[in-house]
Amino acid sequence: MEQGTIVTAAILVIGDEILSGRTKDRNIGYIAEYLTNMGVELREARIVPDLEEEIVAALNALRARYTYVFTTGGIGPTHDDITADAVAKAFGVPIGEDPRAIALMMERYRPEDLTEARRRMARIPEGAELIANPVSKAPGFRLGNVIVMAGVPTVMQAMLDDAAKNLATGRKILAETIEAGNVAEGRYGGPLAKIAAAHSGVTIGSYPSFAEGRFRNQIVIRAKDPALIAAARKDVEAMLAELGEEGEILPRAKTEGDRAPRG
Amino acid sequence: MEQGTIVTAAILVIGDEILSGRTKDRNIGYIAEYLTNMGVELREARIVPDLEEEIVAALNALRARYTYVFTTGGIGPTHDDITADAVAKAFGVPIGEDPRAIALMMERYRPEDLTEARRRMARIPEGAELIANPVSKAPGFRLGNVIVMAGVPTVMQAMLDDAAKNLATGRKILAETIEAGNVAEGRYGGPLAKIAAAHSGVTIGSYPSFAEGRFRNQIVIRAKDPALIAAARKDVEAMLAELGEEGEILPRAKTEGDRAPRG
Repeated sequence: MEQGTIVTAAILVIGDEILSGRTKDRNIGYIAEYLTNMGVELREARIVPDLEEEIVAALNALRARYTYVFTTGGIGPTHDDITADAVAKAFGVPIGEDPRAIALMMERYRPEDLTEARRRMARIPEGAELIANPVSKAPGFRLGNVIVMAGVPTVMQAMLDDAAKNLATGRKILAETIEAGNVAEGRYGGPLAKIAAAHSGVTIGSYPSFAEGRFRNQIVIRAKDPALIAAARKDVEAMLAELGEEGEILPRAKTEGDRAPRG
Repeated sequence: MEQGTIVTAAILVIGDEILSGRTKDRNIGYIAEYLTNMGVELREARIVPDLEEEIVAALNALRARYTYVFTTGGIGPTHDDITADAVAKAFGVPIGEDPRAIALMMERYRPEDLTEARRRMARIPEGAELIANPVSKAPGFRLGNVIVMAGVPTVMQAMLDDAAKNLATGRKILAETIEAGNVAEGRYGGPLAKIAAAHSGVTIGSYPSFAEGRFRNQIVIRAKDPALIAAARKDVEAMLAELGEEGEILPRAKTEGDRAPRG
């Protein structure tokens, strides 16, 4: 894909267990970082329950809007695994047992252990390409711009490696972090807003954290063009140097060992 | 709220840093578990960037559909903190500096340290009730059915405790977990689907995990009525006992120390 093209993505996490809090999602953060590193811009993520109409509605909203949609969860052997059928329904295509998927699963299971439930994992919508699962064989798949992966993190990660081989990528967004030292967010907030407004093509974020008894504020400058980052960085550093000389006694927050309250 | 009433919720996480993967969200899992424990059913979660039109669109979609919407992130002092303004826009109400919020912040800051940036944290939409922030004073707020909280986990958690005092709650969903022992998901999947279909008012999920070199499969039965859970549990246990006597050599997956591949 040519330089400058923007490739976007959304994540759709499917599973009652995430919404009940029983299972804590670890896939969104992993996929987000992975996509950023390959030049794909994650624009949205959603978590929906194991209900076909919810999955179909979210899929259709997201796949119309973004270059890619990555789903996790709901492709196992039990009755609550309904993602493949929901994807087929969203695209309006038939779904059935895929001989390619059965062949892959035969590498793991003896024929007599390929139960009706396990065969559910071979249900693949018509027209989909399989995504390899080196961990436990039952494949993911890609249909159109939707990439369907397992919910188990190690399996999802292996599937993402395989799916990524065939993804278009845009120009990578570069990020540089500036340590704000002893200057509080609440003091550099005003000047930083002016710098952000003056530098188009650049996004500037401010992220405080709190660890080992002291505040740490970081300003992150993001852009595709390193020259734009350098120009913004120069202004931010000059602003921090000026404020740093003025000094301030920063009030302590009533918390320990966590990201800091903004202020 | 009377017994049997269903109280639903959605979470809206706001922040570029979550979508870029720089910061890993820890709030969704925490809020999910918290709401489940108080009888509020979390039905959806979304993550959107720091863009007003995206926040407004998501807010309006979610607040129309669920009893409550909990937002996290974007209420700090810097230019990328635009949640309060987006909430005001979504509701079509004015927003301005709230004297109650300024008074709270004066408990932490000397007047000369109440910078323009920090005063941004006192911007509260008209008609909103404040949510206490015992950690760093700058408050969250509730407007209609939308509860606006900080993104920093410790601050968010303190705000949630305060907001929860005034929430309606429904009948709590009870959950019981059955250890499937040495019976694989792929073997109990078929019979479990039949049991799930036979027990209305009950949802049954199947969750494999992999730790210390062996598989562990858990079946979770959820319902509001303990009698319904007991009836389903009886059937599940009888089914597992039958399958357990048949035995099977379970193939090992190529992974360690993680939730297991389904199969």
